Amino acid sequence: MHLPTPIGWTPDGAIRLLDQTLLPAEERYLVLDTVDAVAEAIRSLRVRGAPLIGVCAAMGVTLAARDGRAGVRAAAAQLGATRPTAVNLHWALRRMEERADHAEQGGEDLVAALREEAQVIWDEDRAMCDRIGAFGAPLIPAGATVVTICNAGALATGGIGSALAPIYHLHRQGRGPSVVVPETRPLLQGSRLTAWELSRAGVSCTLIADGMIASRLRLGDIACALVGADRIAANGDVANKIGTYGLALAAKAHGVPLYVLAPTSTVDPAVPDGARIPIELRADEEVTGWRGARTAAAGVPAWNPAFDVTPAELVTAIVTDRGVVPPHQIGRLVD
Amino acid sequence: MHLPTPIGWTPDGAIRLLDQTLLPAEERYLVLDTVDAVAEAIRSLRVRGAPLIGVCAAMGVTLAARDGRAGVRAAAAQLGATRPTAVNLHWALRRMEERADHAEQGGEDLVAALREEAQVIWDEDRAMCDRIGAFGAPLIPAGATVVTICNAGALATGGIGSALAPIYHLHRQGRGPSVVVPETRPLLQGSRLTAWELSRAGVSCTLIADGMIASRLRLGDIACALVGADRIAANGDVANKIGTYGLALAAKAHGVPLYVLAPTSTVDPAVPDGARIPIELRADEEVTGWRGARTAAAGVPAWNPAFDVTPAELVTAIVTDRGVVPPHQIGRLVD
Repeated sequence: MHLPTPIGWTPDGAIRLLDQTLLPAEERYLVLDTVDAVAEAIRSLRVRGAPLIGVCAAMGVTLAARDGRAGVRAAAAQLGATRPTAVNLHWALRRMEERADHAEQGGEDLVAALREEAQVIWDEDRAMCDRIGAFGAPLIPAGATVVTICNAGALATGGIGSALAPIYHLHRQGRGPSVVVPETRPLLQGSRLTAWELSRAGVSCTLIADGMIASRLRLGDIACALVGADRIAANGDVANKIGTYGLALAAKAHGVPLYVLAPTSTVDPAVPDGARIPIELRADEEVTGWRGARTAAAGVPAWNPAFDVTPAELVTAIVTDRGVVPPHQIGRLVD
Repeated sequence: MHLPTPIGWTPDGAIRLLDQTLLPAEERYLVLDTVDAVAEAIRSLRVRGAPLIGVCAAMGVTLAARDGRAGVRAAAAQLGATRPTAVNLHWALRRMEERADHAEQGGEDLVAALREEAQVIWDEDRAMCDRIGAFGAPLIPAGATVVTICNAGALATGGIGSALAPIYHLHRQGRGPSVVVPETRPLLQGSRLTAWELSRAGVSCTLIADGMIASRLRLGDIACALVGADRIAANGDVANKIGTYGLALAAKAHGVPLYVLAPTSTVDPAVPDGARIPIELRADEEVTGWRGARTAAAGVPAWNPAFDVTPAELVTAIVTDRGVVPPHQIGRLVD
């Protein structure tokens, strides 16, 4: 199975990053060797997906390690301010800062210590993806058709994905489901990224426009919806890519189970419910056009939240690296 | 109030048509003087919107009148085969054929008789739009924000629109609501057409991606959803632009009334329910790209129904030129 590797190290410890804004037309790798470059890459979605943003930010902090503890602190602050919704970013940065403190106290080499920690974060994420795949696979009937949204696959994580992990898990065994992929406007992560990585891996998929989700569910042959998460509140409310809430309402109306798949680093026990999750508002131009070409009439404003919140009562279960839990028990899982 | 006139006659009886595929970038008018050209314009959505397709097809039949009754019959068959879902098309063609029979029996000039009938169909549609506006206006609270989908405005009818008619009605009185406009992929009729005609008319509007509808409704300030229809079955099920069904489910979940606004020519008493309405499937390329530029990975197939069916139980009321009725009474209205 041929999955993309969206991130890596260069031999001299810089970051080798697949520029996801150019996919699927072009597979171009960038070398990022400054914190500024990493911050720009996160902000402009050259790298995206909550778990992968965490991995990338951790690797980005290492680039400031030669400037000592103060450099690490500044890097963490800069990277932490790039995007507000995904909590894995803050979780990874906190771990890097704690490791820096520990290294300082122990007289360790800061660069070596932080590179090691970033690698551990990445390795853990990869392992969490595998466990999510194993826990999620039994929820998908043999020969099923499933629906997802956005991209919660290899391009969104340090491993085989979150929402797509059970699909790859089954595909390896020759029992992979067929996947309905909503294109996910405005930035088309479904069309550009998910359809690309699934078809490269040999998984059968069909693209639809976002407005077709409810009609597609009505046909009656969708076994379940599998979505990722950018932050999960203590009560099980889930922030994920805009459109997830509409998918959840349509799934509910048709009796289709909705599974949220995410590593435990996505759970934020400090946020009691979804209303308290900060939702990133992005530029109007993402909605009023495509790749710089305006499609809407001049002067028409847009509303462009990057995420929405699906209330826990619409979530059948949350599939994490520690097991499958009802949404209201998610807080207990990470205590 | 400055509304576009998407169709008209040239001085010598050809059709002057605004090419809606080029909007909003370019306002270009075509002269159509053959039935072939009219059929192509309908098929490729240079003219669209169920009522306007009816008007255009009626005008198109006049172009065959110099070839006598046989020419009219052939024209009606050709135009009737362009698009399967909108019933106004077949309704208008039947009227033209009946008028041709009548003219033949009475020894009238066929060209003159059919031009008159096409003009009557257009005039009636304009009058129906005005009445839909008057019947619909009291349903919208002062200063409200409403949501629509696709384009059911002046660009979709022979007059001030169906779904947008009450908005223009109130706007003329200085009490126009503010309108949330989903872009309506794949062909962006919301972004390209509705936002264009609303802002030209001075009506405040905000564009969203289709996946944002449920989140926007959740904010709690949307007074109602106003949508058009391409065919209404005898039981009140409504075929309309793909995405309407998802909007209807989200409206229901948030207690927001959903009004379907359409002239009585949209009702098809011969079709008992929505399952019997033929739904047009269009080319994959509309979903896998934009204006010929492919955005999805090569080889990925798409599913592209142009319409969906909203069951009567999700429709609060149907607003027609003959009044406002509960959906299950629509059959009685046109008996």
